[in-house]
Amino acid sequence: MSRQANMRLQLMTWPEVEHYLENRRDVIVPIGSTEQHGPTGLIGTDALTADAIAIRLGETVGAVVAPCLSIGMAHHHLAFKGTMTLRPTTLIAVVQDVVASLARHGFQRVLFVNGHGGNIATVNTAIQEIHAAASLAGMPSPVTAHLASWWDGPRVKGLSRELYGSQEGSHATASEVSVTWALHPDRVQDRVLDPQVAPSNGPWTDALDYRARHPDGRIGSNPALSRPEHGERLMAAAVEDLAERYRPWAGLEGGGR
Amino acid sequence: MSRQANMRLQLMTWPEVEHYLENRRDVIVPIGSTEQHGPTGLIGTDALTADAIAIRLGETVGAVVAPCLSIGMAHHHLAFKGTMTLRPTTLIAVVQDVVASLARHGFQRVLFVNGHGGNIATVNTAIQEIHAAASLAGMPSPVTAHLASWWDGPRVKGLSRELYGSQEGSHATASEVSVTWALHPDRVQDRVLDPQVAPSNGPWTDALDYRARHPDGRIGSNPALSRPEHGERLMAAAVEDLAERYRPWAGLEGGGR
Amino acid sequence: MSRQANMRLQLMTWPEVEHYLENRRDVIVPIGSTEQHGPTGLIGTDALTADAIAIRLGETVGAVVAPCLSIGMAHHHLAFKGTMTLRPTTLIAVVQDVVASLARHGFQRVLFVNGHGGNIATVNTAIQEIHAAASLAGMPSPVTAHLASWWDGPRVKGLSRELYGSQEGSHATASEVSVTWALHPDRVQDRVLDPQVAPSNGPWTDALDYRARHPDGRIGSNPALSRPEHGERLMAAAVEDLAERYRPWAGLEGGGR
Amino acid sequence: MSRQANMRLQLMTWPEVEHYLENRRDVIVPIGSTEQHGPTGLIGTDALTADAIAIRLGETVGAVVAPCLSIGMAHHHLAFKGTMTLRPTTLIAVVQDVVASLARHGFQRVLFVNGHGGNIATVNTAIQEIHAAASLAGMPSPVTAHLASWWDGPRVKGLSRELYGSQEGSHATASEVSVTWALHPDRVQDRVLDPQVAPSNGPWTDALDYRARHPDGRIGSNPALSRPEHGERLMAAAVEDLAERYRPWAGLEGGGR
Amino acid sequence: MSRQANMRLQLMTWPEVEHYLENRRDVIVPIGSTEQHGPTGLIGTDALTADAIAIRLGETVGAVVAPCLSIGMAHHHLAFKGTMTLRPTTLIAVVQDVVASLARHGFQRVLFVNGHGGNIATVNTAIQEIHAAASLAGMPSPVTAHLASWWDGPRVKGLSRELYGSQEGSHATASEVSVTWALHPDRVQDRVLDPQVAPSNGPWTDALDYRARHPDGRIGSNPALSRPEHGERLMAAAVEDLAERYRPWAGLEGGGR
Amino acid sequence: MSRQANMRLQLMTWPEVEHYLENRRDVIVPIGSTEQHGPTGLIGTDALTADAIAIRLGETVGAVVAPCLSIGMAHHHLAFKGTMTLRPTTLIAVVQDVVASLARHGFQRVLFVNGHGGNIATVNTAIQEIHAAASLAGMPSPVTAHLASWWDGPRVKGLSRELYGSQEGSHATASEVSVTWALHPDRVQDRVLDPQVAPSNGPWTDALDYRARHPDGRIGSNPALSRPEHGERLMAAAVEDLAERYRPWAGLEGGGR
Repeated sequence: MSRQANMRLQLMTWPEVEHYLENRRDVIVPIGSTEQHGPTGLIGTDALTADAIAIRLGETVGAVVAPCLSIGMAHHHLAFKGTMTLRPTTLIAVVQDVVASLARHGFQRVLFVNGHGGNIATVNTAIQEIHAAASLAGMPSPVTAHLASWWDGPRVKGLSRELYGSQEGSHATASEVSVTWALHPDRVQDRVLDPQVAPSNGPWTDALDYRARHPDGRIGSNPALSRPEHGERLMAAAVEDLAERYRPWAGLEGGGR
Repeated sequence: MSRQANMRLQLMTWPEVEHYLENRRDVIVPIGSTEQHGPTGLIGTDALTADAIAIRLGETVGAVVAPCLSIGMAHHHLAFKGTMTLRPTTLIAVVQDVVASLARHGFQRVLFVNGHGGNIATVNTAIQEIHAAASLAGMPSPVTAHLASWWDGPRVKGLSRELYGSQEGSHATASEVSVTWALHPDRVQDRVLDPQVAPSNGPWTDALDYRARHPDGRIGSNPALSRPEHGERLMAAAVEDLAERYRPWAGLEGGGR
Repeated sequence: MSRQANMRLQLMTWPEVEHYLENRRDVIVPIGSTEQHGPTGLIGTDALTADAIAIRLGETVGAVVAPCLSIGMAHHHLAFKGTMTLRPTTLIAVVQDVVASLARHGFQRVLFVNGHGGNIATVNTAIQEIHAAASLAGMPSPVTAHLASWWDGPRVKGLSRELYGSQEGSHATASEVSVTWALHPDRVQDRVLDPQVAPSNGPWTDALDYRARHPDGRIGSNPALSRPEHGERLMAAAVEDLAERYRPWAGLEGGGR
Repeated sequence: MSRQANMRLQLMTWPEVEHYLENRRDVIVPIGSTEQHGPTGLIGTDALTADAIAIRLGETVGAVVAPCLSIGMAHHHLAFKGTMTLRPTTLIAVVQDVVASLARHGFQRVLFVNGHGGNIATVNTAIQEIHAAASLAGMPSPVTAHLASWWDGPRVKGLSRELYGSQEGSHATASEVSVTWALHPDRVQDRVLDPQVAPSNGPWTDALDYRARHPDGRIGSNPALSRPEHGERLMAAAVEDLAERYRPWAGLEGGGR
Repeated sequence: MSRQANMRLQLMTWPEVEHYLENRRDVIVPIGSTEQHGPTGLIGTDALTADAIAIRLGETVGAVVAPCLSIGMAHHHLAFKGTMTLRPTTLIAVVQDVVASLARHGFQRVLFVNGHGGNIATVNTAIQEIHAAASLAGMPSPVTAHLASWWDGPRVKGLSRELYGSQEGSHATASEVSVTWALHPDRVQDRVLDPQVAPSNGPWTDALDYRARHPDGRIGSNPALSRPEHGERLMAAAVEDLAERYRPWAGLEGGGR
Repeated sequence: MSRQANMRLQLMTWPEVEHYLENRRDVIVPIGSTEQHGPTGLIGTDALTADAIAIRLGETVGAVVAPCLSIGMAHHHLAFKGTMTLRPTTLIAVVQDVVASLARHGFQRVLFVNGHGGNIATVNTAIQEIHAAASLAGMPSPVTAHLASWWDGPRVKGLSRELYGSQEGSHATASEVSVTWALHPDRVQDRVLDPQVAPSNGPWTDALDYRARHPDGRIGSNPALSRPEHGERLMAAAVEDLAERYRPWAGLEGGGR
C-alpha cells in the first residue's frame, strides 16, 4: 500500500475527518519523549520513532493518526542537557483532554503508539482516571484507550535480538537509534562510545541518581551497531506487530481500507 | 522468630520510632484495596493480605510497618456492591503525602507491599511524581520508594501453581482467598460457584464493562479450591520472597535483627 | 447483641452488601490519624480507637462499617518521629472519593466516626465540597455525610470527667490511652511521665511550634491514670452516645436489626 | 479615637505600609459572604458587617486592614437568588495566596475577622494547609493566622441576648441585620415576616435541602426586632471583644496607637 | 438618573434579585487589584476605580452589580509593600465559581468591569476554561462572560489624552489616581515625585525584576497632574463608553429601566 | 544561511546541547493547535506553520528549537470534526513543565513562536503563573519567557495585506493556508468555498455557538486566494520580523552565528 499522507490528522480537513467517521471510530495517537539518548542518540528519538511508526501503522490499517505528543514523562533524564519532561500529573491531564477531544467527535477506540518506556505507567494511569469518572458515575465510558509500545511485539523483538543480541540494551537502544537514523540519515553519528556497551546499573530515583548510575545516558546498549537500513526493517516489523493487534481491536474486518 | 507486634507503627510510641531511626532508615507501607472479590471472596481481600504479609515481613526483617492504605484504585469493580475506590490522582496525592511524612523523619527507603494489581500503575506514577520534583529542582530525592506485589516472587508463584494450577486465575484468585481464610477462618465461604472456574474475558474499561465481561466478579479463578492452611503457606512463601529482596535493598547486612 | 464480625465491609462479600442494601442505606466510616500521642501513647491511637468504636457501633445498630481511614490531618505532630499526615486538600479528595464510591452503590447516609480532633475542620470542609457541587448544579445531593467524634457525647464525657477530672487533657488524653490499652493490653506502658500532667500551651501553627509548646507531645493530660478496664467502659459509653444519635439520623425505627 | 481611614490597606500608599512594617507585623483581613439573609436581610450582610467591624477594630488597635474577601463558602444558600459562593477548595487557594502575599512583606500575624459561620471550617482548613507545608518541610511557618467571628465574644453575645433573647436565631440574625441597618439606614426593610420567628429545622446538605428546611432563608431569627441603633452598639461590643483578644495576640504592649 | 444604591447586589434582598431576574439576565462584576500604585497612588486603586465605575454603570443601565473582586493578579508588584495577589490559577478558580454561582440563578450575561491590566489574560483564560467544559461536553454554555477595562473606551481615552497627554503613563496613571482622589478626596497626596514622569523600562518578569525597572512603582506616569475633579469626568466618560457597549450586548432595547 | 537541521532539539544529541549552552541561553518553542481551518484548510495549520517558522527562525538566529506543542487551546472549534484541545489549565501546566525543564539546563530566554490566536491568553497566563511563584518567594525568576505570534510583525502583516487585502480574514486565513500549502503542496485543495469570503460574526462562547456563527469554520477569510508561493514569502517575512525582535531580546550581538 502506498503512503497516504492524508491519514495524518494534521494534514486532513474537517470534512475529510467527518467522512472518515462515517465508517470508522478508531484513531491512533503517537506519544514519545524529548530526552537524552546517550552521546550519539537523538534527543527526539522516542517521539520521532513513535510518530513515524504510528503514521506507517495508520497507512497500513487506514486509520487517522493524531499529531505526536512529543514531550513525555522523562524527569530522570534531566541531568543531561536538552531533556524535557512533563510531570506525571500534567501528562495525565494532557491524555484526559486528548481523549475527551477525540471522544467528542465520536471516536471510540484510541490507541497510543508509544515510543518511551517511561510513559507507560503514567499513560495507563491517565486512562484509569478517565474510566474512573465513568465508573463512579455509573455510566459506560464513551471510549476505549490503550497504549502499545512499538518495540513490544514478537517481530520487532525477534529482529532486534537477531541484529544486536544482548547489546540492544534498554535505553538509547541499538534498535531505536537505527530507526532514527533511517528517518534522518544526515544525523548518523560516528562518535566513539566508551564503553562500547553501556552498563546496566539497576533502578534509579531522580535525575542525579540516574546519571550517577548511567554516566553517558545509555543503559546496557551499544548503538554503534545501529544502521539506517536496520531502522527500516525494524519499523516494518513494528508496524506488522501493531497492525495484527490493531485490526481486531478496532473492529476492522478486512484490515482497513 | 516470634511475632513482634511492636514493629507496627500504629502500636509504637514516638520514642520507640526515634530509637529505631538511630540505626535504620527503612519502612514498609502495606497498600491494598476495598473491592469485590467474587461471590465468596472478602471485599477487603487486597488490604487484609497486604497488611498481614507486610506485618510478617516487618517482623522478619525487623522493619517498622506503617498502617495499611486500605482503599486503592479499584473503579472497575464499582458495579459490584461494596467496592470503594480512590481516583488515580487522589491516590497519587496520598502516596506523595505518605512518603513526604516518612521522609520528614529521615526514612530513606519506603517499600509499598502491594495487595492489588490495579494499584501498580498509579503507585508507580506517584513515585515518579515525587522524583520528578527532585529532578526538576536539580536536587537528590530524599527517599527511594518501590512497590512490590506480594504474589510476585518465585516461591509464592511456585506454590500457587502447585496448589491451583490454571485455576489460580487473576482476580479473586484461589491464593488470595486462601490467605484471607487463614486470617479470618470464620469467614470461610461454602457458596457454590457457577461456573466453578470463572471466565477470563480480556481487558475492560469502566465498571459496567468489567461486569459485563466478568459477571460474578472473578477473573479466571476457582476459589473453591482455597483452604486456610494454604493461606499460611502462601504468606510464608511471600514473606520469604519479599525478605530476600528487601534485605539488600534496605542495606541490611545480616538481615534485620 | 453479640459481635457480628461480618458487619465489617472488609469481611463481607459483595452479595452480602447487596443484601444489606435491600433494606438499609446507612454506612459507617471510621477515620483516625497516625500521630504521636506522647511518650506512652500509641502512634495509631486515633485510628485504633475510631476503628474499634465504629465496629462496635456497627454491631450495635446493625450497620456496615467501612475500613478505617488511618492517616488523617496531623501535620502539627510531625516534629515527633512516626507521625504521618495527609495535607488537608489530599484528605478532602480522599473523603470525596470515599463518599462517591459509597453513593454509587446507593448508600445515602455516611457517618464518619472520628478519632482525631485535627480531622474535624478538614472532613467538614470535604463534605461541603461534595454538597457544593450539588448546590451549584441545582441538584439534590445523593448522600448525607456527617462526622461524629467518639469522645463528644454526654456519657463518654461524663465518664472521662469522673475517671480523670482535669487530668484528661486534650491530646494523648487519659481516655484515649485507656481505650488503646483495652484493645492492646500488651502495649500498656509504664514509662514515667515528666511532668505527670502535661502543660497546655495554647494554639500552635506548624510542627516546630507545636513541639516547642508541648515538649513531649501531650497537651494537658496525665495518661499515667489510664487503665485497660477504663477503656472498655469508655468504648461502651461512646457506642451508647453514638447509637443514640445514629438511629434516628439513619432512619432506623427499632434500632437496627 | 477618631476614624483613621488610612488604616485601610486599599487607602494607603506603599511607603505608608513600609513605614507601618517598621514597628508592626500584624494585619487584619475581613472575610464575609454574599448570600441570602432572608426576605429583609441584605445579601451582602456577612461581608458588610465583617468589613465594618474589621475597619473599626483596625482603627482601635492601630492595625492595617486588608480589603474584604466578600465572597465566601455559601453554597447552601444558592437556592435563593443572588447568593454567590466559592467552592471550599477555591477558598482554600484564595486564603493561601492572601497569606502568602502578606507574609512576603513581613507580616507575621494575620487575623481573619469573619462575618459568616459557613466560612469557619474552610478557612481553618486553609490555615492548616499553609502550616502543613511548613511542617512537612521541617521549617517554621513564617506567619500565624487565625479566624475570629465578630459575634463570638462575650460582650456581643451578651448584648444580642439582651436585645433579642431567643429570637436572635442563627441565620439572618436580628443582630447582623441591625449592623447592616446601622451601616445602610436607607436599606431598612419593613416587609412583614411570616412567620415572625423563623423555624430552626436542623442541619442541611445542599441548597435544595436548605431551602426545603428554611423556606424564606432565615434560621430561627426575627429580624423585625432589628434597629440601626442596635447595630452601632453591637459593632462597638464586637470591636471591644476582638480588641481584647487582638492586642496580646499581636504582641501590642499598650494596645496600639 | 439618580443613584440607585439598591442595584448593588450586596445591598439587595433575595426577593429583589428574584424580581430583577423576571426581566433581566445581565449582571456586572467589578474586578480590581490590591497593589502598589507608586509613592502617591492608593494600593486599592484598581479595585476602588473598578467598583465605583461598575456601580455607576449599573445605575446607568439598571443592572445588578456584584461585590468587587478586590484582589487580582498582581505578583509583579510584590516587591512593594502592601501588594496582594492571587496566583493566576487561583483567580481562574474564583472566576469559575463566581460565574457558576450567577449562572445557577439564571444570569446569562456577566460583564467583568476591570480595573487592572494584569487581570486581562487570566480572566479571559478563566472564561475559556468555563466555555471549554461546555465545548467538550457538546453542550451550550449557559452564560456569556466578557471583560471590559474601564479605561479602554474612546471617551475616556480621549479625555485622558486631553488632560495628561504623554504623562498619563501605563501604571499608577494620572487618570486612575484622579479617579481615586475623586472617590477619596481626603487621600489626595502632595508628596513630590522624583522623577516627575516615571520611566517606562519595558516588560518585566517577576517582582524583583519589575522593581529594578520601575524603582518607585510607576510606569511612565506623572500623577502629580491628577485632580479629583478630573476623576469625576473620567468616571463619567468611562460609564458612557461602557454603557454604549453594554446595552446591545445585554439585549437592552431602550437602555435599562 | 543554509538549513541547519541540527538546530532542532529533537535532532540534536545531549553533548551538542551542552556545547550550545556554553555560549547561549536562548531557546525557541513553537506552539500551535490542532483544529479545523475551514473546508480547505488543514487541521494542523497552526502547528505546521508555527513549527516551520520556528525552525527557520532558529536557523536564522542560530538558536535551538524545541519540538512543537501541537495541541493548543481550541475548544471553540470542537463542533468541527478533528479538532483537539487542551483545557486552559492543562496548557498552563504544560507550559510550566516545559519552561521548568529548559530552565533546569540553564536556558534563560524562552520564546514561544505561536501559530494560534486562541493560545495567547492562556500561554501568557502560564508565564505569569511561573513568575508569580518567584515573586511570592521573593526570588528572581530563573527564566524569561515570551510569546510571539508569527503573523504579528510588520513585514508579514504588510505582505498579507498586499496579497489578500480584506479577504485575509481572522481564522483559516488566506496567509496561513498559503504557508501550509508551501509546506505540503500535495495538500492544496481546490474545493469551492461558499460563500467565497466567510462571514465575521462576532465573538463566540462555546463550540456550538462558534459553529452557529461561522458555519464552515472560517472567519472572514477567502483561502481560495492562497498559493504555495505566497507561503514561502510569508514565512520569510515572518522570520525576518521575528529575528529582528529576537536578537536583542536574546542578547545576540551580531545576530547569531
